[in-house]
Amino acid sequence: MIKRIGVLTSGGDAPGMNACIRAVVLTASAYNLDVVGFDHGFNGLLEEDYQTLLPQHVQHIIQHGGTILKSARCKALHTEQGVIQAAAVLHKLQLDALLIIGGDGSFRGALAIAPHYRGQLIGVPGTIDNDVDGTDFSIGFATAIDTALDAIDKIRDTADAFERIFLVELMGRHSGYITLSAGIAAGAEQIICPEFGPVYKNQLSSVIGPIQHAQLLRGKTSYIIVVAENSYPGGTIALAEDISIELGTECRACILGHIQRGGKPVGADRILATKLGAYAVEQLTHGAHLMMAGEINQQAVLFPLAQTSDKKKQIDPYLVRWQQQIASD
Amino acid sequence: MIKRIGVLTSGGDAPGMNACIRAVVLTASAYNLDVVGFDHGFNGLLEEDYQTLLPQHVQHIIQHGGTILKSARCKALHTEQGVIQAAAVLHKLQLDALLIIGGDGSFRGALAIAPHYRGQLIGVPGTIDNDVDGTDFSIGFATAIDTALDAIDKIRDTADAFERIFLVELMGRHSGYITLSAGIAAGAEQIICPEFGPVYKNQLSSVIGPIQHAQLLRGKTSYIIVVAENSYPGGTIALAEDISIELGTECRACILGHIQRGGKPVGADRILATKLGAYAVEQLTHGAHLMMAGEINQQAVLFPLAQTSDKKKQIDPYLVRWQQQIASD
Amino acid sequence: MIKRIGVLTSGGDAPGMNACIRAVVLTASAYNLDVVGFDHGFNGLLEEDYQTLLPQHVQHIIQHGGTILKSARCKALHTEQGVIQAAAVLHKLQLDALLIIGGDGSFRGALAIAPHYRGQLIGVPGTIDNDVDGTDFSIGFATAIDTALDAIDKIRDTADAFERIFLVELMGRHSGYITLSAGIAAGAEQIICPEFGPVYKNQLSSVIGPIQHAQLLRGKTSYIIVVAENSYPGGTIALAEDISIELGTECRACILGHIQRGGKPVGADRILATKLGAYAVEQLTHGAHLMMAGEINQQAVLFPLAQTSDKKKQIDPYLVRWQQQIASD
Amino acid sequence: MIKRIGVLTSGGDAPGMNACIRAVVLTASAYNLDVVGFDHGFNGLLEEDYQTLLPQHVQHIIQHGGTILKSARCKALHTEQGVIQAAAVLHKLQLDALLIIGGDGSFRGALAIAPHYRGQLIGVPGTIDNDVDGTDFSIGFATAIDTALDAIDKIRDTADAFERIFLVELMGRHSGYITLSAGIAAGAEQIICPEFGPVYKNQLSSVIGPIQHAQLLRGKTSYIIVVAENSYPGGTIALAEDISIELGTECRACILGHIQRGGKPVGADRILATKLGAYAVEQLTHGAHLMMAGEINQQAVLFPLAQTSDKKKQIDPYLVRWQQQIASD
Repeated sequence: MIKRIGVLTSGGDAPGMNACIRAVVLTASAYNLDVVGFDHGFNGLLEEDYQTLLPQHVQHIIQHGGTILKSARCKALHTEQGVIQAAAVLHKLQLDALLIIGGDGSFRGALAIAPHYRGQLIGVPGTIDNDVDGTDFSIGFATAIDTALDAIDKIRDTADAFERIFLVELMGRHSGYITLSAGIAAGAEQIICPEFGPVYKNQLSSVIGPIQHAQLLRGKTSYIIVVAENSYPGGTIALAEDISIELGTECRACILGHIQRGGKPVGADRILATKLGAYAVEQLTHGAHLMMAGEINQQAVLFPLAQTSDKKKQIDPYLVRWQQQIASD
Repeated sequence: MIKRIGVLTSGGDAPGMNACIRAVVLTASAYNLDVVGFDHGFNGLLEEDYQTLLPQHVQHIIQHGGTILKSARCKALHTEQGVIQAAAVLHKLQLDALLIIGGDGSFRGALAIAPHYRGQLIGVPGTIDNDVDGTDFSIGFATAIDTALDAIDKIRDTADAFERIFLVELMGRHSGYITLSAGIAAGAEQIICPEFGPVYKNQLSSVIGPIQHAQLLRGKTSYIIVVAENSYPGGTIALAEDISIELGTECRACILGHIQRGGKPVGADRILATKLGAYAVEQLTHGAHLMMAGEINQQAVLFPLAQTSDKKKQIDPYLVRWQQQIASD
Repeated sequence: MIKRIGVLTSGGDAPGMNACIRAVVLTASAYNLDVVGFDHGFNGLLEEDYQTLLPQHVQHIIQHGGTILKSARCKALHTEQGVIQAAAVLHKLQLDALLIIGGDGSFRGALAIAPHYRGQLIGVPGTIDNDVDGTDFSIGFATAIDTALDAIDKIRDTADAFERIFLVELMGRHSGYITLSAGIAAGAEQIICPEFGPVYKNQLSSVIGPIQHAQLLRGKTSYIIVVAENSYPGGTIALAEDISIELGTECRACILGHIQRGGKPVGADRILATKLGAYAVEQLTHGAHLMMAGEINQQAVLFPLAQTSDKKKQIDPYLVRWQQQIASD
Repeated sequence: MIKRIGVLTSGGDAPGMNACIRAVVLTASAYNLDVVGFDHGFNGLLEEDYQTLLPQHVQHIIQHGGTILKSARCKALHTEQGVIQAAAVLHKLQLDALLIIGGDGSFRGALAIAPHYRGQLIGVPGTIDNDVDGTDFSIGFATAIDTALDAIDKIRDTADAFERIFLVELMGRHSGYITLSAGIAAGAEQIICPEFGPVYKNQLSSVIGPIQHAQLLRGKTSYIIVVAENSYPGGTIALAEDISIELGTECRACILGHIQRGGKPVGADRILATKLGAYAVEQLTHGAHLMMAGEINQQAVLFPLAQTSDKKKQIDPYLVRWQQQIASD
């Protein structure tokens, strides 16, 4: 029977992390478990920087972005000494389990601690990138899409008023989830992301062709290209400049950047965060260890923590195909 | 080989209907199909009130609430004469198929026309209520949740400032989807909806008990009860009054009403609408008839139109149980 | 030289009250003044329920609705005993001044305390109603307009989709500020508020006439009437029913209610709140007493607290006239 | 007696331009004037690209960003031949007046046409920059502030979660209006804009000092610097890099860019746009010529078009002083 659990948020912050912390604390309270929250991710664990979390501490945080436990990257955890120290603190504080809210980098931290720790380790996927395997969606993804959309809708107003071409760069270092989803939802005329194949410097015909086609045939009043970060050598601003030269007409770039991480979580993220936080605590009481609590086909499920970054999750092939069909029409 | 299809929106409007119309027109264009849009739901069909829809007509409507085709209830379709007339117009306009975006009431209209019509009939679920079987979510539901949440978050500010009890009534005549989802996402202290059992006039202990418990034990600074419409004899305002009397402290009611139907669709609704609109047209070209295009487990699927209102769709039992567990803690 | 000031928020909460508290604390810190915050308005004063406020207590509250000091009405202050008690607490806590953020009711409370108190009293106008004389705008008004607008824009989507008539009831018991402003900004087809003259039961021609005129001549696709609360015997729902009967077509009512008080303050309210909070503290150091800090023509000014409810503030006559001219066109 | 007027939007688009076009058309209709709208600013005038605008054309555009008339810069108007051509088209179309919605650049275009045109010329200030003299606010400014705020609030979440320093670059090539207003409203820890004095490369003590001071003394959990564009040689990204080097801690830059121009106008902009559009038409009927319709102290006023860029408009000295006082505390 577990009695005391620790919780921390790690890696890039994601809207809904607070909703998840709340669910963890309320559910633990229903199971008569004590909860200790570490500040600044694994750093708080190493530095014994923590606080007891009671239901009154998580009142009315469900609607706030960021994380009341703070987040951080933690270099020390990449050393043998660091992971041993982390396990030692968990033992010292008599914690029967540690719950990590974060992405696959954070889960690797948990896996590194495992050999040295007698307790249970469980992860909850919290990252806007949605690049964690074992769950259909990660906490924060839905909000990031709506934040991106809100910005693209605004750029559409100006693009339309000026009949101009705009590039909008979205986050997603290794995956096109945010870019494809926001691009489809915004009705973007073109989407550039890893899954759609690379764009080479000075070989822009794959990008330029559809623009010229659209302008000629469809009387488009504006043309928006949504671009995943790192899609072009030199970056999206360089891409905009190169397109401008090729087309002989000004093309502007907007880099959305960090506004995609913050903000009030949308309903879908609050519900997912609540469900997964509750489920993770419940499964800890049933002995879950080295697992991630995810949601697949609307069912809460456990998935091996070690496999969350094994397989590249696929973005919806139906939408990929549709976008390509429409764009080439 | 089909050549020409008709499309209409029917029943209560839902955010994302425009995104669906856009996808229908763009996809039809990719398949070289002509599209005719009827105004005011089935009324436009009966009155031959229609327009040809080309890609340029659906530019930049993806982000708008409402429906460019207008919607309406249609009494005439409940008569034998009406359905015969509807079929006659479809034949006259040489439409090989009719695509209906709406809820189960609208689908019953389609089923009534079927015996008289030689072409294909297909439905797409567009209703904020999410009470259509054969799809995990209907178009408009996700936006309605976020609209409700936005209002409840605002009421939370005031409830907190005054340490008051508020009732917020949400839509959902026959189902608790919106109420449960928005209630969980808002961190509502109590949820009253059909699936949680009835509340009887002058037998308010099931409602009052948890309020008193929460105020005593947890130092709650505010208490929000989310209520599905039609949950109490006399309505939610009467319920607030009866609670006020029982508790001896003022309790206020807010009826969200029609603001839940409108607004810019969120990303999830735009993507769902795009996917289902595209899929419905694609399946028409493969001969689909008397089917609804839905999404189950992230896959676009066909489901018999006749069965969309057969079975009461279940709301997430995990969240139902969790909410009851937390509330009684 | 003053050394210590008290601050409280009183009456209906208004977005921007937190921004004002923050400015009071930061400015006081710059002047080396201590600040004590009372909870629950004058109740916290009477019950000695207070906390010291330091700059770190007001970090990142500028963007939140509600008030960290809570608010309340206070019946005890309407008694001689209450005001004597209030003054006694102020003396006991060695407060040289009390700063009240609220509406004219709250200011009357301050005036009642004055004869018994040796310190200074200053008010800052915080109310969504904008019915306080001595300032062009009160804190919270701008946000309330945008909240109302957001709701009316959503209702417009549905009204348009159905070509329907909607009534939207806004707050403003004694004045039409919110109603006129939101009505103009929403492009409402008709505005009913005290300043536009009364509407009598069963004498609806002044309301019905313009509807019929608009529908006949302009091909209106929807018709929205914005109504100040208390404009019709029996309320806005009764008005909608009576219009429905007269016109023979369904007309729906939406009561926005308490969502108008909450929410993240817009920029204009945060700036006004910051300016007036800072100015009030600064003027206290110069000896201001029985004054309200307001803004007129973009200048911070002092205005006698006793006169803030003397004169009925006029709503913009230019917009009133324009709306009537357009409506009758 | 004038009979026919032309209207165009020119320069950078601003939220509220559509609300202004609507007011122009509705007011003109009330005065029995015909309205012709030119597309793409002065280009539409030169190319005789126009449409008649009737009340039904401006229904339900009040809530949309951008401009239904499109906008553009127009190089041809900088030539003698261009202005003569513009005047010739105005005469040919028998327009008694031209109404220009735009910034001071657009007004210079109008002034250039004046010597060649027999009709009346009137301007309405529509630009997010608020750098036009003769009006307290220009159309679009209030919305741009709220758009910037929304982004900064989101960045605050992440900055707080990571206890990081962020730079946020806002628009305003020659003035600090947007930067000061958004900075104050966001509770930014530091504001860098022309009016606060220059920042020199490699002389960053004025920037670095307050950061170090704040971190030492106040336990700040995040630090946001709002920066007007063009405030640092090499741009805001270079500034972030230089601060990172100086402080030895990572500092990130976000460039808001074009999202500041678009979006649904807030209430204040819709009301201002309505008032100034109506007033401009009304004053045209009274013979106004070479004037701009502005609002000063809540009164609609006329101001000589030739002087709108004469004097640098001052940003609120009270807030400037307060920000400096607080920052140095």
